[in-house]
Amino acid sequence: MIIAVKRGTDAAELRDFTAFLENRGVRVHRSEGTSQTVLGLVGDTTGIDEEGLKAHHLVEKVIRVQEPYKRANRLFHPEDTRIDGTGPDGRDWHIGAGNLGIIAGPCSVEGQDQILETALAVQKAGARFLRGGAFKPRTSPYSFQGMGCKGLDLLVEAKKAAGLPLVTELMDIRQLELFDQVDIIQVGARNMQNFALLKELGRCRKPVLLKRGYACTITELLMAAEYLMAGGNDQIILCERGIRSFDNYTRNILDLSAVPALKRQSHLPVIVDPSHATGLAWMVPAMAKAAVAAGADGLIVEVHRDPERALCDGEQSITHKGFSSLMESLKKYAAIEGKCL
Amino acid sequence: MIIAVKRGTDAAELRDFTAFLENRGVRVHRSEGTSQTVLGLVGDTTGIDEEGLKAHHLVEKVIRVQEPYKRANRLFHPEDTRIDGTGPDGRDWHIGAGNLGIIAGPCSVEGQDQILETALAVQKAGARFLRGGAFKPRTSPYSFQGMGCKGLDLLVEAKKAAGLPLVTELMDIRQLELFDQVDIIQVGARNMQNFALLKELGRCRKPVLLKRGYACTITELLMAAEYLMAGGNDQIILCERGIRSFDNYTRNILDLSAVPALKRQSHLPVIVDPSHATGLAWMVPAMAKAAVAAGADGLIVEVHRDPERALCDGEQSITHKGFSSLMESLKKYAAIEGKCL
Amino acid sequence: MIIAVKRGTDAAELRDFTAFLENRGVRVHRSEGTSQTVLGLVGDTTGIDEEGLKAHHLVEKVIRVQEPYKRANRLFHPEDTRIDGTGPDGRDWHIGAGNLGIIAGPCSVEGQDQILETALAVQKAGARFLRGGAFKPRTSPYSFQGMGCKGLDLLVEAKKAAGLPLVTELMDIRQLELFDQVDIIQVGARNMQNFALLKELGRCRKPVLLKRGYACTITELLMAAEYLMAGGNDQIILCERGIRSFDNYTRNILDLSAVPALKRQSHLPVIVDPSHATGLAWMVPAMAKAAVAAGADGLIVEVHRDPERALCDGEQSITHKGFSSLMESLKKYAAIEGKCL
Amino acid sequence: MIIAVKRGTDAAELRDFTAFLENRGVRVHRSEGTSQTVLGLVGDTTGIDEEGLKAHHLVEKVIRVQEPYKRANRLFHPEDTRIDGTGPDGRDWHIGAGNLGIIAGPCSVEGQDQILETALAVQKAGARFLRGGAFKPRTSPYSFQGMGCKGLDLLVEAKKAAGLPLVTELMDIRQLELFDQVDIIQVGARNMQNFALLKELGRCRKPVLLKRGYACTITELLMAAEYLMAGGNDQIILCERGIRSFDNYTRNILDLSAVPALKRQSHLPVIVDPSHATGLAWMVPAMAKAAVAAGADGLIVEVHRDPERALCDGEQSITHKGFSSLMESLKKYAAIEGKCL
Repeated sequence: MIIAVKRGTDAAELRDFTAFLENRGVRVHRSEGTSQTVLGLVGDTTGIDEEGLKAHHLVEKVIRVQEPYKRANRLFHPEDTRIDGTGPDGRDWHIGAGNLGIIAGPCSVEGQDQILETALAVQKAGARFLRGGAFKPRTSPYSFQGMGCKGLDLLVEAKKAAGLPLVTELMDIRQLELFDQVDIIQVGARNMQNFALLKELGRCRKPVLLKRGYACTITELLMAAEYLMAGGNDQIILCERGIRSFDNYTRNILDLSAVPALKRQSHLPVIVDPSHATGLAWMVPAMAKAAVAAGADGLIVEVHRDPERALCDGEQSITHKGFSSLMESLKKYAAIEGKCL
Repeated sequence: MIIAVKRGTDAAELRDFTAFLENRGVRVHRSEGTSQTVLGLVGDTTGIDEEGLKAHHLVEKVIRVQEPYKRANRLFHPEDTRIDGTGPDGRDWHIGAGNLGIIAGPCSVEGQDQILETALAVQKAGARFLRGGAFKPRTSPYSFQGMGCKGLDLLVEAKKAAGLPLVTELMDIRQLELFDQVDIIQVGARNMQNFALLKELGRCRKPVLLKRGYACTITELLMAAEYLMAGGNDQIILCERGIRSFDNYTRNILDLSAVPALKRQSHLPVIVDPSHATGLAWMVPAMAKAAVAAGADGLIVEVHRDPERALCDGEQSITHKGFSSLMESLKKYAAIEGKCL
Repeated sequence: MIIAVKRGTDAAELRDFTAFLENRGVRVHRSEGTSQTVLGLVGDTTGIDEEGLKAHHLVEKVIRVQEPYKRANRLFHPEDTRIDGTGPDGRDWHIGAGNLGIIAGPCSVEGQDQILETALAVQKAGARFLRGGAFKPRTSPYSFQGMGCKGLDLLVEAKKAAGLPLVTELMDIRQLELFDQVDIIQVGARNMQNFALLKELGRCRKPVLLKRGYACTITELLMAAEYLMAGGNDQIILCERGIRSFDNYTRNILDLSAVPALKRQSHLPVIVDPSHATGLAWMVPAMAKAAVAAGADGLIVEVHRDPERALCDGEQSITHKGFSSLMESLKKYAAIEGKCL
Repeated sequence: MIIAVKRGTDAAELRDFTAFLENRGVRVHRSEGTSQTVLGLVGDTTGIDEEGLKAHHLVEKVIRVQEPYKRANRLFHPEDTRIDGTGPDGRDWHIGAGNLGIIAGPCSVEGQDQILETALAVQKAGARFLRGGAFKPRTSPYSFQGMGCKGLDLLVEAKKAAGLPLVTELMDIRQLELFDQVDIIQVGARNMQNFALLKELGRCRKPVLLKRGYACTITELLMAAEYLMAGGNDQIILCERGIRSFDNYTRNILDLSAVPALKRQSHLPVIVDPSHATGLAWMVPAMAKAAVAAGADGLIVEVHRDPERALCDGEQSITHKGFSSLMESLKKYAAIEGKCL
């Protein structure tokens, strides 16, 4: 961390300020220019509050050289992390380090028949994971809120029938115990900075799919991962799902540059959700292919047997047939990129 | 709600689609132009999912004329709502409908002495409410996370000593029972769409200070209020605290146009947090005055006895003296605007 | 265009308002609901000012169903437009309708030797067009502003030597006459809404590469194209080059969803500039591939023989070798997508 | 400027890099930490391209301590700049340094009668300047483009009749000679980075009202001012007029924190345009008052005698009566803030 000290600071003030900094466990290296003194903080600065330092009357600027995250930082963990598990069919699954994880299924479970039919269809088309929501975060209290516990039971039934590991969202800390049969717990974009939830999941021993908040920076996403990892859970999958912008042609702007950015900064796998990002089913295939071309480690895609009659997010769901055709394209892309699909 | 039907839709399709819509509890009024058929949905459309309709193959555009919120809507409740209570000093307090509520105190409670000293100072300067955090939402897991339950006890002690009602943030649903002595429960910007938390607070009977998420629209803020109100809690105070933008001169951009916008759309009181919005103590007085000039019903301001040594958010905290001088200006502004301070 | 009339409007007011609208050359179709009257405007509404209508005291909402652009609209021109020309080598070139146009070269011309060397290198690697700036739009008046007319001469020399058509930016209307030997005139992002410039170029008979302003919507970009087309120039190539966002990891956010969006709304070819979008040379190959996967009709890429010593934008320029290796990958992507490279 | 050098850089590389930097006219001061070497550049760094330096393979981060603008910088010009002139009535006018400049008039001149009537009305209500557009930047080529030269004549006639200095927008460099009778030349938001225009106006000797681009940062606005000032024109008035955001309740988000920010960074006067910022006439008075409370040196407000019939921007224009009532409020605000109105 580098601190530019205000012009006119005298020697005694500088001495006191240096002592103040050293009390926080770092060494301070001083460099004096003609008009400006610069202090370099040497040691572990992750625990030093940048904002706090800016409040000091002698400080002009504070610049972080070292990133504020440690466990999620590729600097300290150069190898790609691979997330592993064993599916209900007994086969091992992997995401990251050359393995493309394709997660597919409906926005929400709407009934036994519906989830089963889609689970089997996506499995047949080549998906390796089933997604589906039982508890839904909806902007309006008057919208369908998901089938709840009953929905969770149906998801577990479907995952077993299709032999696919299950990915589903946890919204309420108090329901964690119901998620025993869930293979990967999803933290939704709106909860990316729900720190109570992150701390709880840090203590749990299941992989977590962490979605980027729709107005959160690359650094904030990695800091949210750091919360989970600081708690002891290092099975984290990052997910880009679109950010807010001034244009509303698509629901959000899919930030595909986040894929190479996150993979450079961190060793964690990065997947992309083209469905929530665009909100437009017809655009999903183009964006899914682009995500793989940009280096993503997987995709999470909404698929519905009859999007027009979906209780939720029909506009962005592709059909069984559409998904099947997308998988054909993705196989070619995976081959070029040398990824296992 | 108005639906523009795609060109080339035939009569039979239109009849089926009309039936499909009427099944959702509205009447459908048809208007045929030369190149376009338009359907008007008459009745209560708050339960109809706009996004879902867009998935229908006959739909070109869907336009909501009626807002998706009801209880928070000024249309159905033309009078200003006033939030009332009785403080620890036995005096009644009011926010809204002509009453300016000034809430002040440190970012977080750091010790008995600190919170007590600031509580008495802001009370003396004219604040009517004490703020302070015991549980802190921090971007980094390595930053100070607040004093927790012990901090809550100190806040309650300070509120009694200063005779000021207490405003503090709830981050974890499971801690609601600890908030018995809290007068107004704050929902932070990062939790504005934590729907599990909103549903729980909808069932509680305490005023809620609901902060706008830093990338949430006016409508989304009102929908979050609607969650609380749909649960039966109608004592809601809205708070503008800055939104994300491309410029990082200030931490966020204080959106003061949200004040007249929210007050036109809703009957709920609207206050402003110039401290979190700007992140810069020297800018707080200018923005506080501007907020009152724009029609705000109150302010929530961070005040610290020694901002340089604050454990949290020192950069944005004003001193006791700075607050006192701000209150002198605010009195003049309140007088012009005809508000009780 | 659909107008929702305010509640409580009486019959006489409605009659007057209808006459007021019909005076603007459209027919008005009225639809009365129980609580709301809706007017549909039938005919050509591109000349009707939506904002102006909102000022009318009887108007609650105005909704455009038809897009405000005509000539750029795919609705009225379903086939892809292909931009054609003949290069200095006598060969015909095409962009769009299945033809990938790869434009490469340095940010700016810095000298005869430099531009020639890079022109030959990109030609050899497979680029079909040479880019390079003689007049540079720089944020600071103290930064290198380009070599000016001398630079233009060097570009023309290099284009001839390499046999590549030349793409370069026009910043000042008064310099148009100097652009005689330029094959495609570029309008930079900062000039996308420089209407004086657009009008002038609408009268010229050269292809224009129109870059999206960094905070302009899809619709605004198409309206800027419409300015050019309304003037009679229909040889327009659209270019996505990144938009502003709250994250500053990359210089801008490359909005790849703009590619399918623009291609659905318009018949014009759409290319992508991964260099300006990301500002990071190491990220350019990933984003270039993703652009082609998303359906782009071409790329414009900054290439420098020694990025560290570039007078401008070195951080985002790839080396000759890097470009050559990128072209190898792009050939595979073009093959999958069935595009001519 | 501070440069953090990459880990692992050896002594010889560092020596070469230092020489490379010193060739650019600065002295280099080296500070070695245990894991990081930091270089401080001493001297005038305004001409050093920050982006370019980032391209160097030894560079990890570049941090500017000194701002990139000089002439616009308050650091080198601590006193407020006041812009002065003499009106057609022979009276001197001032903007800045305690003088509130209120500029009012229609969006565009529509006819002799209209502009004259409004000019007299705003003068009577207390405005000190007349605004009005003859050449209009419109998103659509099919919208009213202004009356052109004829309009300019009418504006000059009206300014004389009302005795008010005239503020109007220049869009096309080639028309500068027509602006002889214009007192303050406006550069619109879309042209803030039209560098050809800025350079030309830098050579002219009239005050320039420079509007902030709707997605430009505080620093970029000051760099645009620097273009004008580097050319020799130091009569610059900055204008905040709203920035792009994800919410579309208002046309733009009025960034009032830009007022104290600009006034801290620069000595130039700062005014606010609440009309374009909000796009909503009913919101203009609240935002106008807030702007003055935030410390603005003036306002530019759209006023129309019959907003419903305005050819342009009627939605955001207030009436003669509305303006008159706003002026009454502003007088009270000016008195509190100690400004001359």
